[in-house]
Amino acid sequence: MIKAGVLGTTGYAGIELVRYLKVHPEVDLAHLISNSESGKKLAEIYPNFISFNKSLEEYDIDILKKLDIVFTALPHGVAQDIVAELRENKIKVIDLSGDFRYKDAERYEKWYDIEHKYPELLQQRVYGLVEMNKAQIDQSELIANPGCYPTASTLGLLPIVNEPYTDIDSIIIDAKSGVSGAGKSLKRVTHFTEVDESVKAYGITTHRHTSEIEANLEEFTEENKINLSFTPHLIPMKRGILATIYIDLNSNIEEKEIVNKYKEFYQDSYFVKILDSTPDTKYVAGTNFCHIGINVDKRISRLIITSAIDNLGKGAAGQAVQNMNILFGLQEETGMEGTAIFP
Amino acid sequence: MIKAGVLGTTGYAGIELVRYLKVHPEVDLAHLISNSESGKKLAEIYPNFISFNKSLEEYDIDILKKLDIVFTALPHGVAQDIVAELRENKIKVIDLSGDFRYKDAERYEKWYDIEHKYPELLQQRVYGLVEMNKAQIDQSELIANPGCYPTASTLGLLPIVNEPYTDIDSIIIDAKSGVSGAGKSLKRVTHFTEVDESVKAYGITTHRHTSEIEANLEEFTEENKINLSFTPHLIPMKRGILATIYIDLNSNIEEKEIVNKYKEFYQDSYFVKILDSTPDTKYVAGTNFCHIGINVDKRISRLIITSAIDNLGKGAAGQAVQNMNILFGLQEETGMEGTAIFP
Amino acid sequence: MIKAGVLGTTGYAGIELVRYLKVHPEVDLAHLISNSESGKKLAEIYPNFISFNKSLEEYDIDILKKLDIVFTALPHGVAQDIVAELRENKIKVIDLSGDFRYKDAERYEKWYDIEHKYPELLQQRVYGLVEMNKAQIDQSELIANPGCYPTASTLGLLPIVNEPYTDIDSIIIDAKSGVSGAGKSLKRVTHFTEVDESVKAYGITTHRHTSEIEANLEEFTEENKINLSFTPHLIPMKRGILATIYIDLNSNIEEKEIVNKYKEFYQDSYFVKILDSTPDTKYVAGTNFCHIGINVDKRISRLIITSAIDNLGKGAAGQAVQNMNILFGLQEETGMEGTAIFP
Amino acid sequence: MIKAGVLGTTGYAGIELVRYLKVHPEVDLAHLISNSESGKKLAEIYPNFISFNKSLEEYDIDILKKLDIVFTALPHGVAQDIVAELRENKIKVIDLSGDFRYKDAERYEKWYDIEHKYPELLQQRVYGLVEMNKAQIDQSELIANPGCYPTASTLGLLPIVNEPYTDIDSIIIDAKSGVSGAGKSLKRVTHFTEVDESVKAYGITTHRHTSEIEANLEEFTEENKINLSFTPHLIPMKRGILATIYIDLNSNIEEKEIVNKYKEFYQDSYFVKILDSTPDTKYVAGTNFCHIGINVDKRISRLIITSAIDNLGKGAAGQAVQNMNILFGLQEETGMEGTAIFP
Repeated sequence: MIKAGVLGTTGYAGIELVRYLKVHPEVDLAHLISNSESGKKLAEIYPNFISFNKSLEEYDIDILKKLDIVFTALPHGVAQDIVAELRENKIKVIDLSGDFRYKDAERYEKWYDIEHKYPELLQQRVYGLVEMNKAQIDQSELIANPGCYPTASTLGLLPIVNEPYTDIDSIIIDAKSGVSGAGKSLKRVTHFTEVDESVKAYGITTHRHTSEIEANLEEFTEENKINLSFTPHLIPMKRGILATIYIDLNSNIEEKEIVNKYKEFYQDSYFVKILDSTPDTKYVAGTNFCHIGINVDKRISRLIITSAIDNLGKGAAGQAVQNMNILFGLQEETGMEGTAIFP
Repeated sequence: MIKAGVLGTTGYAGIELVRYLKVHPEVDLAHLISNSESGKKLAEIYPNFISFNKSLEEYDIDILKKLDIVFTALPHGVAQDIVAELRENKIKVIDLSGDFRYKDAERYEKWYDIEHKYPELLQQRVYGLVEMNKAQIDQSELIANPGCYPTASTLGLLPIVNEPYTDIDSIIIDAKSGVSGAGKSLKRVTHFTEVDESVKAYGITTHRHTSEIEANLEEFTEENKINLSFTPHLIPMKRGILATIYIDLNSNIEEKEIVNKYKEFYQDSYFVKILDSTPDTKYVAGTNFCHIGINVDKRISRLIITSAIDNLGKGAAGQAVQNMNILFGLQEETGMEGTAIFP
Repeated sequence: MIKAGVLGTTGYAGIELVRYLKVHPEVDLAHLISNSESGKKLAEIYPNFISFNKSLEEYDIDILKKLDIVFTALPHGVAQDIVAELRENKIKVIDLSGDFRYKDAERYEKWYDIEHKYPELLQQRVYGLVEMNKAQIDQSELIANPGCYPTASTLGLLPIVNEPYTDIDSIIIDAKSGVSGAGKSLKRVTHFTEVDESVKAYGITTHRHTSEIEANLEEFTEENKINLSFTPHLIPMKRGILATIYIDLNSNIEEKEIVNKYKEFYQDSYFVKILDSTPDTKYVAGTNFCHIGINVDKRISRLIITSAIDNLGKGAAGQAVQNMNILFGLQEETGMEGTAIFP
Repeated sequence: MIKAGVLGTTGYAGIELVRYLKVHPEVDLAHLISNSESGKKLAEIYPNFISFNKSLEEYDIDILKKLDIVFTALPHGVAQDIVAELRENKIKVIDLSGDFRYKDAERYEKWYDIEHKYPELLQQRVYGLVEMNKAQIDQSELIANPGCYPTASTLGLLPIVNEPYTDIDSIIIDAKSGVSGAGKSLKRVTHFTEVDESVKAYGITTHRHTSEIEANLEEFTEENKINLSFTPHLIPMKRGILATIYIDLNSNIEEKEIVNKYKEFYQDSYFVKILDSTPDTKYVAGTNFCHIGINVDKRISRLIITSAIDNLGKGAAGQAVQNMNILFGLQEETGMEGTAIFP
């Protein structure tokens, strides 16, 4: 059994990790860390865990040292120091924050506007987008779990960005997210009466995930610099991201050919599925799946890709568990074979 | 492995059964029957089943004969004849319709306004509310799976209806349900723009489940006749029932004493939990749990019980699987240990 | 033109007052007071007011003195002192808080757990439920605007509580409210991900509005003491209250007779309508209407009344404007003849 | 008073017309036509109209002849013949269908896949986007009311498409709509449980409104042929469209300059407002307003415009009333000065 711990348990990514790990057949979920709520039972805060008789503990490096893996689900900035300490103590870490997602500290400092104090750790870390970096993940002891929007967006683009018929400089990603992506901290913008029955864009031109998607594509294409537009929107639902991706085509290519390219690219992937229809986020909510739809607009030589994930599943906790599975030599889907709940 | 089949697969209770059974460790989900959609893959209709490579088949009694259990998730009236044929062929049945929920055909005919053609089957059937009839369930070959409102309501009342301090003639149940309870057939009342941002009562004084709750309580209390008020409401969410139950107290009794009575009554039950707080339906959605809260209003000598379930879980498919588990000598929670998805 | 001011403008009742008053044909909405946001334009906070070029001001009694009417939409406790100062300066006040809703300070202090510093003002104030106290309202200079739940509940009960065939001691009110009733202050319980897709009861046996409904009925029936059950629920929508009211019948009376009683009672009321069907809150949202449905359960001699209002309309700002209209001798519906927006 | 009639009253655009017209100070709403529901009171179908004592009538050209204006809110294809008959009888028409929105029948026949039987009427009609064609509208006797998506999209683009710094061939419009846009007819895709908690794209590359936006821009720019991408999405809310529009910039231009261009362009427009922030659809729902936000991404020389309307307001009935106001020489905002309801 893999002995696991979660840091930042009471955040939304944290409790989603607990939900997956508590039924994972190969995991002993030994420690739930929450400095703010230590001493309480998890079910006092979230009654869905009422039959899971587990209490929250304070952070203690000596206890964590005995674990096989620690998931850090902490705010960026805060995560840096904790991860550094964990790594100093040789503890394997899957970090769900933005702190270790870039290879270079400079990009981090530019987009997050915080100093990165551990650039040497950035050299060791692997970016945990399984479908892109599977081979390196099982070698790594520090996995940077991807952001939610970058996961949906990158998975939607990987199969064709190295094709000569796509124009890598024309990418526009228009993304729609449920509200759980904004976390549990109370803000006017996530107050029920503010969100319900409305849609708005936010972070136009400035959202940090823009740079994460660019970094992913630069790495995968070996292009020097990729610039793209990324616009997130908040919509009145709890879970789910739909990324609608536009990329210009340089030549007259059939939709069928592109669909086949995608199916081939993801043929060995358990979690990425190419649909014959257009994806709905509801069919992936609560799971680690990514559903992708392909449309070619021949009239204007443009490819339109729609990519749906659960922001807390493949966009956070689910992907973290998938990374753990690979790290420990398990089937990637172990513990995550459930189906999205519908209706 | 238990070889199982589902009839009426594409209805909401049907696909929820498939969701549970496909990951059940002791079940081989052999046949998915749907006369209206036979030949199609289930994932063509519900893409959340994309990694479950299973097709819908037409009803064929000779194939079903080889199964250990058949779940019938068909409309009432239709279910009668099918269940009768299955039983003639010695097939064990868990029926999710209303057709076999009463002992006597007369009550059925009065509240459903349909003839019951198989009163002899009513003598053999067991009413599958596990927490009430567990002992008989594993003897039975025809289990009538309870209705959603009767499950929430009866579980909320069982621990105290035989107590001298409650007035059995004073029961009022005010229930609130998500829309999935109304099924997948298209009606004005379940059109998005009609349901969203509104609440209304329906079936006031006439809802069939009134009589099912009354029958349950009569059987459990051995009272001759119980009359109660039951008022269902439709609220803008997909899943969940909250039954708010009012019953007068005859004597001055402490809340704490009643809470203990409930905890004792359900101490061996995996799925019924007495909360120290008030239940939210979100914490049971997608599961087979029932969460119950207890309040005594000493000022007016009234007990107020709030009972929350998922109408498609403990209110339909989850309870059916729980019944199957008991019928086949498994732990009642087998295959249903997951936690409600929150947020 | 009636010169009016609003105190507590940026709260939800405050902006609803502005919405009504800015298009009211007889009102000059002269001053919008908000100590927390003074100096800003209202549209900076709420862009729906973008074409209403009005700024928020600090509280200044000298300015308010020149007004014909001031609406106080402040938290209870805070309102007391302000209203007292306004009254000292002979300013007519319609107060939307709970501070002046009871005749006796004792009841206030018991249920609100705060001292009432101005019991003498309680003697002068009129309780502004128009359909109950219309005659006194145009005499009053201090109108206590009713609470949202008490409005829906009292309107649902007035026509029959003085009838010999109803049992005044048997009243149970089960109410369902949209989230705007909880106001704009950020709380976990009104965070989008907490409210969405769930229903729960709150304040069981202890909600302050219980006592307001009891006080109303005691006054109207001249009974010494009425005790009733009131249980509010929070449901995932913005606006609307549905009160489902249960009261026992002492004799065998026809539904038709009771319907006629209600129609007669409200025959001169513009805003209270008796439906032949069951009310949906969506059909009154954004308006000052109350829709009432009547059901008699002859089987168990119980009357079930469903009463729907908009918690910010007839339950707050709409009713306040209706009170103002009566106070100034206008038709009660002046400025509020619009229809609920559907869909 | 303008004597007006509505055809297709019980559809969603129809009842929204009634909602506006019944309180319009210059309109006598004389006839409500609905062949499917004639004889009924409108309030029997929509109880929000309970205080509007008006019945639905059958279509009768002799009665309609006496009116000053008729609004046709009928399905495309059906509208053609009715509008032709109305025009033959010299009746002024504002048509809300797609049948008269293009100048040339060919484009209609290509995108709607129906024959246009009255190409001569296309020569006479004016396209009723007020902010583009105000001058012609008051001359016209047949006004084609714009589609919902084309209204939000075209208003978002008009101020800059004739500027040399925008690349007219680079336009991508990603639109998000509430469900009322799909009308009241029952479909699986608008069933509550299907829409709630999900988002999906639909009609990718093929939606008819693509061609309407192209036609508008061609006319306004006098370009020969404009091709653009338009992708609509269905989101779980009732009302509102947000169009997120991407267009490449050819030169280094400041955001401030573009904002000023927009403010200048719409300076005399009552209903189009340029925000300093990003628009939320909730702030225009229930109104005829369009709120526009401007962002320049200097990093990649792209302009991102967010344009919010109510699909049934400025996207249908509101705009139709605005057209009527202009046609009859009234202020464009007459009868539509109300504020969006928030919360």
